Amino acid sequence: MPIIVQKFGGTSVGSVTKIKNVARRVMEEVERGNDVVVVVSAMGKTTDELVTMAKEITDNPSKREMDMLLSTGEQVTISLLTMALLEQGQQTISFTGWQAGIQTEAVHGNARILQIDTKRMEAELQAGKVVVVAGFQGIDEEGNITTLGRGGSDTTAVALAAALKAQRCDIYTDVTGVFTTDPRYIKEARKLLSISYDEMLELANLGAGVLHPRAVEFAKNYHIPLEVRSSMEKESGTIIEEDATMEENLIVRGIAFEDKITRVTVFGLPRTLSTLSTIFTTLAKHHINVDIIIQTMTSEETTNLSFSIKSEVLQEALQVLESNKPNLEFERIETEDGLAKVSIVGSGMVSNPGVAAEMFEVMANTGIQVKMVSTSEIKVSTVINEQEMVKAVEALHVAFNLGAHSKALA
Amino acid sequence: MPIIVQKFGGTSVGSVTKIKNVARRVMEEVERGNDVVVVVSAMGKTTDELVTMAKEITDNPSKREMDMLLSTGEQVTISLLTMALLEQGQQTISFTGWQAGIQTEAVHGNARILQIDTKRMEAELQAGKVVVVAGFQGIDEEGNITTLGRGGSDTTAVALAAALKAQRCDIYTDVTGVFTTDPRYIKEARKLLSISYDEMLELANLGAGVLHPRAVEFAKNYHIPLEVRSSMEKESGTIIEEDATMEENLIVRGIAFEDKITRVTVFGLPRTLSTLSTIFTTLAKHHINVDIIIQTMTSEETTNLSFSIKSEVLQEALQVLESNKPNLEFERIETEDGLAKVSIVGSGMVSNPGVAAEMFEVMANTGIQVKMVSTSEIKVSTVINEQEMVKAVEALHVAFNLGAHSKALA
Repeated sequence: MPIIVQKFGGTSVGSVTKIKNVARRVMEEVERGNDVVVVVSAMGKTTDELVTMAKEITDNPSKREMDMLLSTGEQVTISLLTMALLEQGQQTISFTGWQAGIQTEAVHGNARILQIDTKRMEAELQAGKVVVVAGFQGIDEEGNITTLGRGGSDTTAVALAAALKAQRCDIYTDVTGVFTTDPRYIKEARKLLSISYDEMLELANLGAGVLHPRAVEFAKNYHIPLEVRSSMEKESGTIIEEDATMEENLIVRGIAFEDKITRVTVFGLPRTLSTLSTIFTTLAKHHINVDIIIQTMTSEETTNLSFSIKSEVLQEALQVLESNKPNLEFERIETEDGLAKVSIVGSGMVSNPGVAAEMFEVMANTGIQVKMVSTSEIKVSTVINEQEMVKAVEALHVAFNLGAHSKALA
Repeated sequence: MPIIVQKFGGTSVGSVTKIKNVARRVMEEVERGNDVVVVVSAMGKTTDELVTMAKEITDNPSKREMDMLLSTGEQVTISLLTMALLEQGQQTISFTGWQAGIQTEAVHGNARILQIDTKRMEAELQAGKVVVVAGFQGIDEEGNITTLGRGGSDTTAVALAAALKAQRCDIYTDVTGVFTTDPRYIKEARKLLSISYDEMLELANLGAGVLHPRAVEFAKNYHIPLEVRSSMEKESGTIIEEDATMEENLIVRGIAFEDKITRVTVFGLPRTLSTLSTIFTTLAKHHINVDIIIQTMTSEETTNLSFSIKSEVLQEALQVLESNKPNLEFERIETEDGLAKVSIVGSGMVSNPGVAAEMFEVMANTGIQVKMVSTSEIKVSTVINEQEMVKAVEALHVAFNLGAHSKALA
């Protein structure tokens, strides 16, 4: 029988009532004649509560012990969901990460999956059972519990789908699919029927937040079709697969945006070969993620450098730069906050060189000044004033015809 | 170095603050130059909260999944305690039951420990680490998580002490030791310096509640000295070992008592060889624990049978008996509730035949009617009216000289 992997995140299993609902969703897939493996996260606020207790004990908890602590969250969910399935008369069994044979690197907090020993899962599926697996966790070769870090349960689901040669991996979440842009801001936003892995990766990295980029990459590498769909509503979601065959006339597939961006400009850096690497290595060591980077040559000897960061890490970034001033040899720093990033994404751009130009024209016609630009093969990102973010997205959504297919989806 | 096993129960680890306190108690033992293995239970109300969630899902949860669920409780505690020890600069590592090599029967909810593979624990002790182990849990040969049932963490601690050839197993709890009787009722109650395994077994079975009888039996079989002591106060506790060498002049070592007892009398049972076994097998099948049993012959053909049970199971016991009436062939049932059980315990009784008589005399002199009696080699139990329970215990405590040594202990 075809194997379907279903993944339900923390919101979808946030209460006993919701867990019962998840059990019904699982039963629907069983009744379609599929073998089902279910991956679940910790219930709603559980992880936060555990982290709070750890922080009351120490400011710097051992990563091994944090994994030991946090992995209990999913273990609670698998047992409760299994009970709910048994209550519906379904044969089923729960597995922690290590019981499911998920072997990872000997790294705590952010381990990668090395291999999955599927023997026991396959035997239970053969026996007609639904297999319920704790997401986010595995075991290293010494038998220590590890966790996979952010997006870990998505990654578990996709990795299990790959190891079990599943037909599909369904990611159940609190939205009904992947949208052309964020429907909380843009009422014309519409759900996409399908999207390619690369497009999803750009959207995920740009903060669309539905699915972790790591899981998308994993799915892309192993050719696992993903479906993002709602755990509460029955409508079909968005398929993520190799080629988005439908809607292929759309050059731009989606618009991602994010506020609370700050631009940092460093003036008068020496023009040596190592300047760029030194400055960004220094920031990376302090876990400050830099997004768009622009370098301008101002003279033979010096260069100016602008980059965008999340506003919340500005103070830390400034401290790091100032304390490394003797080493970095810059003249001064200027910052501008209250900015936002707006990006258009679509694999059709590769063969349509005018897309970036069209985006800038829309911005100009709407009276919006573009302060920074960055492009990739399937993405154009701009930094603009925060107050103009929604207006820009609305204009782009219309210009690139993203609302047009809404009737076809009804 | 000598190995000491310390066990801290749910009350002792009931909050982050208490866990930090436990870390200090562990450090004291380390500073005495011992290798230390710590066994902990789930934090305070955790188990109740998990059970509540399971009950919201099903009235009849799978035992395997209950073990999966409940075992998370101790896993949270081991990680937090390990963090607290690291915070004090102590090298340490936490182990779940399966990581500690605790192999059990393939039984859920009430598994017995089969063997313990101590390799990894010994390596970590050798490396100078405190080893923190989750109590109450193990793993069966198929890799399923099992739990040991009531008193499970006590049993884990004693079993680890046996497997690691520990010098002593300290049971930290919310009382300062084992008392001659319950100090909440009898202000003259005093703490015993030492007590034998058998005496402790009788007291534990009689509801003294400090230590689970199963753990005491385990300790007796493997000759592990136990010390029951307070996790909050520094005074030494009560040693439980083969021969209570001190205070050996005391014939009676302690008085246990319990209220809410009901006597059930079944009249007119046929006098066949199988009557007793039939009636108590029937009750046992329904998990109704019967305590004292008295049989009286009334005629050539029939017999009357009295037994005591906890009042809370009376209705169920009556239902079981009535529904089996055709089979058991009794005439009628009478019950008397509002009773209590008072027992004296002491290994000195074996060689002092008059102890039971002395107990009855004390009862008679105090104007208390004894309704049922049961004796063993080191125990005499009586059933009396509930209202007279405390008065009886006070009188016995004086008569058997149990308060006399209080000054020697100060």
